[in-house]
Amino acid sequence: PPTTTSLSLPLRSSPDYWASANADIQAHLERAIQIRHPLAVSEPMRHLTFSAPETTAPALCLLACELVGGSRDQAVAAGSALRLVHAAASAHEGLLSSRPRTDGPNFGPNIELLTGDGLTPFGFELLARSEPDHSNPTTRAESSSRVLRAIIEIARASGSHGMVEARYNEIEMIDGSGGDDEEWVERVCKKKEGEIHACAGACGAILGGGGEEEIERLRRYGVYVGMIRGIVAAKRVGRGGRRWLERKVGELRELGLNELKGFNREKVEPIASLMLTSEHDRRLRMTD
Amino acid sequence: PPTTTSLSLPLRSSPDYWASANADIQAHLERAIQIRHPLAVSEPMRHLTFSAPETTAPALCLLACELVGGSRDQAVAAGSALRLVHAAASAHEGLLSSRPRTDGPNFGPNIELLTGDGLTPFGFELLARSEPDHSNPTTRAESSSRVLRAIIEIARASGSHGMVEARYNEIEMIDGSGGDDEEWVERVCKKKEGEIHACAGACGAILGGGGEEEIERLRRYGVYVGMIRGIVAAKRVGRGGRRWLERKVGELRELGLNELKGFNREKVEPIASLMLTSEHDRRLRMTD
Repeated sequence: PPTTTSLSLPLRSSPDYWASANADIQAHLERAIQIRHPLAVSEPMRHLTFSAPETTAPALCLLACELVGGSRDQAVAAGSALRLVHAAASAHEGLLSSRPRTDGPNFGPNIELLTGDGLTPFGFELLARSEPDHSNPTTRAESSSRVLRAIIEIARASGSHGMVEARYNEIEMIDGSGGDDEEWVERVCKKKEGEIHACAGACGAILGGGGEEEIERLRRYGVYVGMIRGIVAAKRVGRGGRRWLERKVGELRELGLNELKGFNREKVEPIASLMLTSEHDRRLRMTD
Repeated sequence: PPTTTSLSLPLRSSPDYWASANADIQAHLERAIQIRHPLAVSEPMRHLTFSAPETTAPALCLLACELVGGSRDQAVAAGSALRLVHAAASAHEGLLSSRPRTDGPNFGPNIELLTGDGLTPFGFELLARSEPDHSNPTTRAESSSRVLRAIIEIARASGSHGMVEARYNEIEMIDGSGGDDEEWVERVCKKKEGEIHACAGACGAILGGGGEEEIERLRRYGVYVGMIRGIVAAKRVGRGGRRWLERKVGELRELGLNELKGFNREKVEPIASLMLTSEHDRRLRMTD
């Protein structure tokens, strides 16, 4: 089965790039929340944003932007918006199931509902505000169009055909009506983590000024990264066997690397690292 | 006290303009929902969108756009977005209180939560897509900037400082912790209906190409229209006395008409009619 050593690209098994991109997003969000919201509002917002389950989608957005030649700050608002819509969905997830939250302060269902409802528009606001001030109308038109396109991408990925449908699928899975386990995990992961990562890859490429082919390559790359992340997370809660996991992750890495082939080999390492972190490797070595 | 006859502008006590603007928004939404969503998703979306409590904010957006010299279609996506964020809030309102819905099909709390979560991004998507295709970069930059500005306006009005805070206030009111009744109604209405109408007035003016002063006038006008609507609706559920209602509505109309004074007198009638409908008048004649 394909393993780390079979990869044709130099990959550090370190989450350095991911951590650094995440730190930039965190700083951007901390500033934005603090400036606009008093403590009573900002505390649950901050908590529900930063305690949401980990996702690599926002970091992927920044790294995709850099890969196509953009600078990280062009994508930091979109990365923040991705984090916010993900946090909004997570805040509402607790309302769907009957399991009470056990981690951190419990704000109660009303505050979780309302704060979640506030996080999504906040994400679109940050993104719409991120349009840089260009005096040249052609540059300005181009940059506004990119921001509008990113808004459409994130709206679709977080909307009723995206994350909302994924959450609906997941309820079905939890209810046990999902049929065959591994096939179902794959389908759910493709929809849930796959689509938000696809959106992140595409948004990063759009905002960094990538061409249409680059945008589509990074959109497909996102699907594979998201699926790897989702499948590994599903394994953590006991879904899918070890051999299936290894085979599947190996296949997805090959597919992912294939999408990165068109890009400058030197610049590929940061984004490729999202497919292979020490955390993954540790988990891959775990027994069934 | 100021009554209908004291108004210095010719006002038809007819909701014609409102009805016609609403019909345009309804047609726009019907098309958009049908094209993008299969029946299982579009049915609860359509139901929760079109069965949401009446609001004049979307119509105000279209009429404000026309008042500053724009054409109605420039604002129809923003009007639709306003309707969608309002519907999303209404869908989630049933989840806050413990009262079960009695009108129309009941989709259950999970579908109401998820559908509500899908309506907000759908609104931003429609708005971001509404950017017309201009070949002239200056015109295109201008038009994109207006759309981005409308997105910021609607995000703020529907977010944690806008509708979310208003819903929080309303829970407090329902819980009876709101202190003096009439003062409280006024405060809640200013926040709830006032702000979304203010946003609608400003968005219409922005998208129609109005100047900054026109935008701010129509924003303030929106506050007054929203408050009139809110106070009349509160009266319906027994909040506030008849005399207070008449005095308050009279005052708000004067303030509203004052904001419209700067505009072409001939063109003011449609938007002014939002302050005075036959429905209002009927209610004003009701006894305590």
